[in-house]
Amino acid sequence: MHYTHHNNELNIAHVGQTVSLKGWVAKKRNLGGLIFIDLRDRFGITQLVIQPENPNYDEAATFKSEYVIEATGLVVKRESINSQIATGEIEVVVNSLKLLNTAETPPIGISNEDKSLEDTRLKYRYLDLRRPIMQNYLIKRSQITQAVREALLVEGFNEFETPILGKSTPEGARDFLVPSRIYPGEFYALPQSPQIYKQLYMVAGFEKYFQIARCFRDEDLRADRQLEFTQVDIETSFLSEQDIQAMIERVLQHTFKKVLNYDIDFPIPRLSYEKAISLYGSDKPDLRFGLLLNTYTDMFAPFEIPFFSDKSIRGFVIPNGAHLTRKELDQFTLSVKKNHGEALAYLKYINQELSGSILKFITEPKALVDTLGLNNQDLLCLVVGKDYAKASNAAGALRKEVGEYMNLASDTDYKFAWIVDWPLFDENEDGSLTAAHHPFTAPKEQDKALLKTNPKACMAQAYDIVLNGYELGGGSVRIHESHIQQQMFEAIGLPSDVIEQRFGFLVGALKYGTPPHGGLALGLDRLVMLMTGTKNIKDVIAFPKTQSARDLMMEAPSSVADLQLDELKISFKK
Amino acid sequence: MHYTHHNNELNIAHVGQTVSLKGWVAKKRNLGGLIFIDLRDRFGITQLVIQPENPNYDEAATFKSEYVIEATGLVVKRESINSQIATGEIEVVVNSLKLLNTAETPPIGISNEDKSLEDTRLKYRYLDLRRPIMQNYLIKRSQITQAVREALLVEGFNEFETPILGKSTPEGARDFLVPSRIYPGEFYALPQSPQIYKQLYMVAGFEKYFQIARCFRDEDLRADRQLEFTQVDIETSFLSEQDIQAMIERVLQHTFKKVLNYDIDFPIPRLSYEKAISLYGSDKPDLRFGLLLNTYTDMFAPFEIPFFSDKSIRGFVIPNGAHLTRKELDQFTLSVKKNHGEALAYLKYINQELSGSILKFITEPKALVDTLGLNNQDLLCLVVGKDYAKASNAAGALRKEVGEYMNLASDTDYKFAWIVDWPLFDENEDGSLTAAHHPFTAPKEQDKALLKTNPKACMAQAYDIVLNGYELGGGSVRIHESHIQQQMFEAIGLPSDVIEQRFGFLVGALKYGTPPHGGLALGLDRLVMLMTGTKNIKDVIAFPKTQSARDLMMEAPSSVADLQLDELKISFKK
Repeated sequence: MHYTHHNNELNIAHVGQTVSLKGWVAKKRNLGGLIFIDLRDRFGITQLVIQPENPNYDEAATFKSEYVIEATGLVVKRESINSQIATGEIEVVVNSLKLLNTAETPPIGISNEDKSLEDTRLKYRYLDLRRPIMQNYLIKRSQITQAVREALLVEGFNEFETPILGKSTPEGARDFLVPSRIYPGEFYALPQSPQIYKQLYMVAGFEKYFQIARCFRDEDLRADRQLEFTQVDIETSFLSEQDIQAMIERVLQHTFKKVLNYDIDFPIPRLSYEKAISLYGSDKPDLRFGLLLNTYTDMFAPFEIPFFSDKSIRGFVIPNGAHLTRKELDQFTLSVKKNHGEALAYLKYINQELSGSILKFITEPKALVDTLGLNNQDLLCLVVGKDYAKASNAAGALRKEVGEYMNLASDTDYKFAWIVDWPLFDENEDGSLTAAHHPFTAPKEQDKALLKTNPKACMAQAYDIVLNGYELGGGSVRIHESHIQQQMFEAIGLPSDVIEQRFGFLVGALKYGTPPHGGLALGLDRLVMLMTGTKNIKDVIAFPKTQSARDLMMEAPSSVADLQLDELKISFKK
Repeated sequence: MHYTHHNNELNIAHVGQTVSLKGWVAKKRNLGGLIFIDLRDRFGITQLVIQPENPNYDEAATFKSEYVIEATGLVVKRESINSQIATGEIEVVVNSLKLLNTAETPPIGISNEDKSLEDTRLKYRYLDLRRPIMQNYLIKRSQITQAVREALLVEGFNEFETPILGKSTPEGARDFLVPSRIYPGEFYALPQSPQIYKQLYMVAGFEKYFQIARCFRDEDLRADRQLEFTQVDIETSFLSEQDIQAMIERVLQHTFKKVLNYDIDFPIPRLSYEKAISLYGSDKPDLRFGLLLNTYTDMFAPFEIPFFSDKSIRGFVIPNGAHLTRKELDQFTLSVKKNHGEALAYLKYINQELSGSILKFITEPKALVDTLGLNNQDLLCLVVGKDYAKASNAAGALRKEVGEYMNLASDTDYKFAWIVDWPLFDENEDGSLTAAHHPFTAPKEQDKALLKTNPKACMAQAYDIVLNGYELGGGSVRIHESHIQQQMFEAIGLPSDVIEQRFGFLVGALKYGTPPHGGLALGLDRLVMLMTGTKNIKDVIAFPKTQSARDLMMEAPSSVADLQLDELKISFKK
C-alpha cells in the first residue's frame, strides 16, 4: 500500500515517470469522455486523468467527493497549466486505480470557502479539519511546538513531565476536581499550571526544565479561552530576570525564523508596567502602530468642561483622523463606555479650524492647537474616566480599536515588548492584598525588607512578554528563601494553618537548599494563533470545546453510569 | 549570576584558568587548615579549596551539606588524582565565594547509597531527586523522549495534541471522571488513551500523527502501574501491519543508538501469539535466554503418574540445572502455584543417573532420557496445569523466574520480539466475546467475512512489541469501514443504542471517506525503565503516586472546600 509521492510534489521534472498516489477525491469532472479527478492529501492536489480505455473507467465514473483512492499512472505535461497549485504543470494519466473507501456526502464543504456554522463544523470536526486552511493551522502548530523545543534543547534544557492528577490549591482560577474512588470524599485536581512542580524540579537541582504542558481552568469561557490550554512552561536556576528574558528572546527568534522565516526586531523594547499604562493604556500594548496616549486632565482644566470636572482625561491624536464621521465616532464612544470610560470627547483640526463636540467650551482654540501641536487633519480623542486607571484603560481599549479599524497593524508584522517592573500586590477594595502575579513571585531585591513593613510598595521581579496586543507569556523570578515565602503568604492574609495545609511541602522544600530560580510560561495556543494569523483560538486546537464548555463531536460532558457514581460514592444535590 | 562551567567539565586542560561554578555543597572537609568542598550540580562534582587567607574562609567554615553556593577561583592540578570523578585531576582554589541559600539537615541522604524507606523518599521527593542516580533516570527519560520524537519527525510525523477532558466510554479499564460545574450531574472523563482522537486525526487526513500522551486509568495500582502514565502514541494512514512494524523498528533503532549507543539486533523476530505461548508460555517472552518450553503430556502419559492424570504437562530443560537444591526447587514450586499451576515435578540427570520427585513412576528411565535428549547435569522441570493454557502460563512464569534466578539475562542486553497473529476476540466464561485488543482493531483481511458468521475464529491485524519480557507496546490496523465497525460492536454484544450513545460519532465519522489506518502505542515509562536498567517504574517518574494512589509530597488526593463541592452540586453517600 505504498505511494511514491505526496500530492504537492510532482512537476515538469517528473514527466515520463510512473508514480503512485493516494488521497481523497476533492473534485471529479467528466470532460470530452475523460474523467478528471483532483486528488487531495494534506500536502496538496494532483490532477488524475482516467481515459475511456482504462479498465477502471466505469468504476471511476461512480466516484464521489471524499472517496479515498489509490492511483498509479504516468506523469504527463498538461496542455493548460494551472498556476494555482504546485503540481499545475502536470497531470497523471492513470493506469491502475483502487477504491480504498467510499464516502457519503459530507454535511459540510471540504474547502476553505465553506461557510457552515461553527457548531456544525465542531460537530463534524473530523471533516472540518480536512479543509486545507485547518490542516495548515495544525501542522503549523506542530512545527511551532517543535521549533520552540529545538531552541530550548540548544539552551541546555531538558523536557520533564509533571503530574496531571495533583492537589487542589485554589489560587486564582477554579480547579477541575477528580474524585478519588479509593478515598471517597477526597479529590485530585487538574493543574492550573505546573508552577509548583516546576519549582520543585529546581529544588531538586535539575536547573533547566521545560514542558509543553496542558493546563486547566474551570472558568467561564471567553472567545480566546478554553477549559484546557497548552503552555510552554519553562523554569531555570541561577538566572536573573534579564538572563531569562534574553533566553526567551533567543527561543522566539529561532521559532519565528524557522517557521515563518521572519526576523524579529531586536532589541525587544522593555516597558515598565507604569510606562505601558501611561503610553498605551494597556499592560499588553500593541506596538505595531502609534497613537500614543497623553494625559490631558491639566490641559483642559481651564476650560471648565462640565463632564470633565473631577475626572481624569486621557487620549491620543489620530493623524489624518479628521475624516472620521459622526457615525464612526459614535462607535468609538460605545467602545469607551464598554470599557468603563465615562465619555469620549473629540476635536478635529482641518485647515486651521478646530471643530468637535467640546469646541464650544474652548476659550482660546489657537493657543490650544499650539499646545497640542496638532497638524492638519488630526483628530484628538479625549477619554473621560473616573480616575487615571479607568481613563487609561478605556483610552487604551479605544486606541486598540482605532488601530484595528484604521488598519494600522498588519497581521504579518510582529512587534514584541517586555512589560517589567510590576507591583508585587494588587489591592482589593477592602484594602487587603492579593498576589498580582502569583504568590511565588519574588519581590525586587531592594524591596525584600518592605515585605513586612510596607508590602504595598513592593515591586516584583516579574515580566510579561507581549506580542501585537496579546499577552504571550508571563514569568518571574521566584521566591527561593523559605522566610520570604512565609512573609509573602502572610502579606496576602493566608492563615498559618491554610499555608501549612496548602503549601506546607513547598515552604518545607525551600528550607533544604533551594537555588535562586525563575521562569516563564508562553501560551502556545495564542502563539500559534498569532503566527498563523487567525483570530479564533479554536482554529489552532484540533478538538476544542465550545464557549458553553461542550465537545459537540464527542458529546461531552455527559451523564455516566450509576455504577460509576456508586463507586465514587457521589450523589447530586437538587 | 553566570557560571562558566558545569561541575563535570574541568580537567587538566583548564589549569591556570579562572572559572565560576555553582551548586550544592555535597561534602565539606577541613584538612590541615584548608577547607575542601565537593560542589555538586546535575552534571557532576568539582572539588573547591578554600585557603585560610581567603576573606570568606570563616563563612565557608559554617557551610553545611546542601547549602547552595557560587564560587570563583583558579583551576589547579591536584596533588592526588581522584579517578572516581570526571574532574578528579584538578581542584579550584577559591578566591571569591557567595552563599546563595542555606539548608537544614535533609531528612534523607543525598547519595546513591541512601537507604531511606520509599515512603520517606516520596514525601521528600524534591530531595530524593537530587540523588545522582535519580537525576540520571529523569535526564535519560528526557533524552529518550527526544530521540523517539526525532525519529518520528524524520519519518514525516507531526506531533498533535488531543483533549484531556473527554467523554467517558467505559471500555476496559475504569475512567477518571471530572464533574462539570456548568452541567451538574454530567462529567468529562480523562482519556485511557487518545485512541479515538488519533483515529479521527486519520479521518481528517493528517496521515501521520504522534503524541507523547498522558493516559489515565483508575485501576488498583500494581508495582509497575501508575494512575497516570505516558505513551508514545502513533497513528498512520495507508500502511500495512508490516509497514507500521518496520517504522517502529526504525524509531527504536534510532532511540537505542542515540541514547545508549546500542545496536538492536535486526531482524526483530516475529512470533505468532500461538508460537509465543508454545515456546515461552507467555505473550511477552524474554528472548535473552533459552529454556524453551515443550509439551510433555503425551510423553509421560504411559507412566501413569497420578497427579499428571487428565492434566496438561508443559516444561523445559535447565542445562546444568541439576545442582539446584531441594530448597531452590521448593521456591520454584511456589512460583508455579502462584501462577495457577497445579504442581511442579522434576527430573535430574547426573552422570547417567536419573533422579527426582517422579522417578519412582518412570518405568524405563534410559529410554526416557534418550527421548528427552537429556545431557549430563540437565534438570527437567515439568509443570502440571489444568489445561494447556494454564500449564503454559505457569511454565512461562517459571521460565522467567529461573532465568532471573540463574542470571541468564543481562540488563544491558535488549532482545525485542514482535508478537503477531492475535485472536480478535477473547471468550468469556459465558461464551460471550470481548475485544481482545480494543473494539477498533481490524480483523485479518481474509477473516472479515467471519465477523458475522463465526467471529470466534477471526484473527486480528494486531501486534505487540515485546522487550526483555515486558510488553513495550501494542498496536493494530484499525477498522476503517463503517459496516465492519458496526459488526464488531455487535459481535461484542453492544446494543445499538449503546453503540449510538458511546461511539455514534465514530461510526458516523467512518462513513465520510476514512482512509485505511493503524498505529501503535509504546509505554514510555516502561521503555525508560528498561533503558535505564531500573526495576521500579517510580524511579523514572518524577512525582509518582504510591501503590495506594497517593501523592505523599503534595498530600493528594485531599478534601476540598465545601464551596467547591457546592459549585459542583456534589454530595457524598455514606
